[in-house]
Amino acid sequence: MKKNVIVAQSGGPTVAINASLAGVVDAVVKSDLYDTVYGSINGILGIINNRLLNLSKKNNEISNFIDTLKISPAMYLGSCRYKLPDYEDDDAVYTYIFHQFEKMNIGAFFYIGGNDSMDTVLKLSHYGNQIGSDIRIIGIPKTIDNDLCITDHTPGYGSAAKYVASSILEIAHDTYIYSVKSVTIVEIMGRDAGWLTAAAALARNSYNTAPHLIYLPESPFDQNKFIEDVKYELSRRNNVIIAVSEGIRDKDGNYFSASKPTSDQFGHAQLSGAGKCLEYFIKESINVKVRSIELNVLQRCAAHIASLTDIEESFSLGCEAVICAEKGISGYMLIINRVSNSPYNITIDTADIKNIANNAKTIPKEWINKQGNDIMPELYEYMSPLITGEVTISYANGLPQYLPIDHLNPVN
Amino acid sequence: MKKNVIVAQSGGPTVAINASLAGVVDAVVKSDLYDTVYGSINGILGIINNRLLNLSKKNNEISNFIDTLKISPAMYLGSCRYKLPDYEDDDAVYTYIFHQFEKMNIGAFFYIGGNDSMDTVLKLSHYGNQIGSDIRIIGIPKTIDNDLCITDHTPGYGSAAKYVASSILEIAHDTYIYSVKSVTIVEIMGRDAGWLTAAAALARNSYNTAPHLIYLPESPFDQNKFIEDVKYELSRRNNVIIAVSEGIRDKDGNYFSASKPTSDQFGHAQLSGAGKCLEYFIKESINVKVRSIELNVLQRCAAHIASLTDIEESFSLGCEAVICAEKGISGYMLIINRVSNSPYNITIDTADIKNIANNAKTIPKEWINKQGNDIMPELYEYMSPLITGEVTISYANGLPQYLPIDHLNPVN
Repeated sequence: MKKNVIVAQSGGPTVAINASLAGVVDAVVKSDLYDTVYGSINGILGIINNRLLNLSKKNNEISNFIDTLKISPAMYLGSCRYKLPDYEDDDAVYTYIFHQFEKMNIGAFFYIGGNDSMDTVLKLSHYGNQIGSDIRIIGIPKTIDNDLCITDHTPGYGSAAKYVASSILEIAHDTYIYSVKSVTIVEIMGRDAGWLTAAAALARNSYNTAPHLIYLPESPFDQNKFIEDVKYELSRRNNVIIAVSEGIRDKDGNYFSASKPTSDQFGHAQLSGAGKCLEYFIKESINVKVRSIELNVLQRCAAHIASLTDIEESFSLGCEAVICAEKGISGYMLIINRVSNSPYNITIDTADIKNIANNAKTIPKEWINKQGNDIMPELYEYMSPLITGEVTISYANGLPQYLPIDHLNPVN
Repeated sequence: MKKNVIVAQSGGPTVAINASLAGVVDAVVKSDLYDTVYGSINGILGIINNRLLNLSKKNNEISNFIDTLKISPAMYLGSCRYKLPDYEDDDAVYTYIFHQFEKMNIGAFFYIGGNDSMDTVLKLSHYGNQIGSDIRIIGIPKTIDNDLCITDHTPGYGSAAKYVASSILEIAHDTYIYSVKSVTIVEIMGRDAGWLTAAAALARNSYNTAPHLIYLPESPFDQNKFIEDVKYELSRRNNVIIAVSEGIRDKDGNYFSASKPTSDQFGHAQLSGAGKCLEYFIKESINVKVRSIELNVLQRCAAHIASLTDIEESFSLGCEAVICAEKGISGYMLIINRVSNSPYNITIDTADIKNIANNAKTIPKEWINKQGNDIMPELYEYMSPLITGEVTISYANGLPQYLPIDHLNPVN
């Protein structure tokens, strides 16, 4: 008798996380071992709260469902920020989850997520081992932050990087039109790792030199050095564009954001981010027009400009996860190995989840310039292939057509 | 002997202003009356400072140049914010400009811009009349704000509206994934007119009800009523999404933005906008997760998601401007007449510049609901056709390929 599978999504959204879900659904549909694929609504909580969606459609619907799911942003199954307790302290929830698995004849559970979600995969697979369960527990990575260990890069990063690079290029076009001197600061996501901010450098082309300065969380941020950098760039060109990570911090590790007062003059529990802080610093020191732009959530949900490379890899990871489960692999996460950079070529492999969960990968020091205000060519070469290729989006009445998600947001 | 023409761009950028420039170039290339088309760099200042670009390419280059120019964001010729003095007070600059026109054998001058630029067109054509010049002076409208009089709508508005609607839809996907209650505020451009903020309503489709509240500059904003609105929406759904214009003001006309303290607690010359103000109001009154997003300059420069309707109309206006000049029309602005809404059909006409310059068009009261927190169906019907159709963008190395603008930003 064929077994069923459950898949869920967790953590923050990306543009590619539904592509991995589509890959799981596609592979289960084609599987000889597995029957129905259930989606758990709001991550692992859907199993606990019995909110499951049958994703195995009829033959005439499945192809369109998979194609549209593949390019839809955020999470079709919703998300959660739920952290499992240690089962040695409290195994009640584990007992319940594995009871549900048995009841529904589940053969495999796939969790698509970032660091915290891999902690759930680790705990579930440990517990499963302990009770002698043969249910496969497999992690599928995703995060725009690109901060998961062992894998060459993470699904979702390439699309976010493409959005950041394209936005910086378009902001450059917008900025260069005025002949008056100006500074434009673009704040990019990434609290602890600068991968996504570094992607701003991909906007440089034959005519665009922006961003002219890049500040990452990996390099201690010095306010005085920053003002010197900006003055130097302003001496060379009219319009200076700066990419800054939301997570920049001083040499003592203090963030330049959130509720930290930026100065006596503008202080008083500002609810502003790093970009606004830098805007204030410049306003206090240099007589120049200055503006800050926060790319905000659009960098993780603008599916209409997704990277085809990213979407296809994410889809393949979903498919491969099912194949791994069929082979009996459990307690592992799918990873991407880069075989060569030019031409860009990858293979998909697995890695033991215990080496991945609760660790984070930052940019190596040698990929950042000595002054700490730009990236080195090696990082450019690493990022460049990940944003290539464009997805085809259907539009209706001028709007992108994504998969409806009304099952996530019930209205009373 | 054939005459030459000069074209220039002025004011804030849009995604469609280069399409009008492409239309002018295309029509001059095909013209029997006109020879070379010169682009004036940084608006009218290019004529004064003798910074002119020959836009008449060789035959084998012109088609690719026009096609790429048509879909490139911002302003290929750069912009200015220069206001001509009254020639009755000081005609020195007028004498110089018309001297340059004569020297270069100019037969027509086209100015693509918004309200302030039409003031320049008005003054130049008055002065031209007074000195008996037969040089045609013609205005071509553009502004994302859609606030020019007489024309049904303005080139650039449809693309910005499409960006706003698509972004709200993608933000909805991003927001709906969590089951915890939240409020998301999206601040949209438009200081005095709410046309662009209203376009957020175009994001509503079969499954998306966001934005759930819309606040426009045309309706006086009441802080207490706002909190009531939000509480009501939170009682109906988990995730409330609000579209707010940067220009909302109270019944006395005071803006909720810029340096106006938002409250005693958060005050002290906040450099924040309307979205941040509303975020503070909610944080003070309701115990709910709240975030504000400022769409910022991307709503006027994200050419990769331009409206085809907008781009084609903008191109046609550029072509028609040249044809009008050939017919001897001067002191007029090109306008769009809507012949029918379903099917959407327009004609291009002209209107005397003196009825357009220095006036602004806001949303009619009857197109806003009585509570002042949403739009009426008539406004939806008006906006809907303007965002339809998608442009085809070429990508190289994962980035949109726009026309290089290195002539605007010299590096020392």
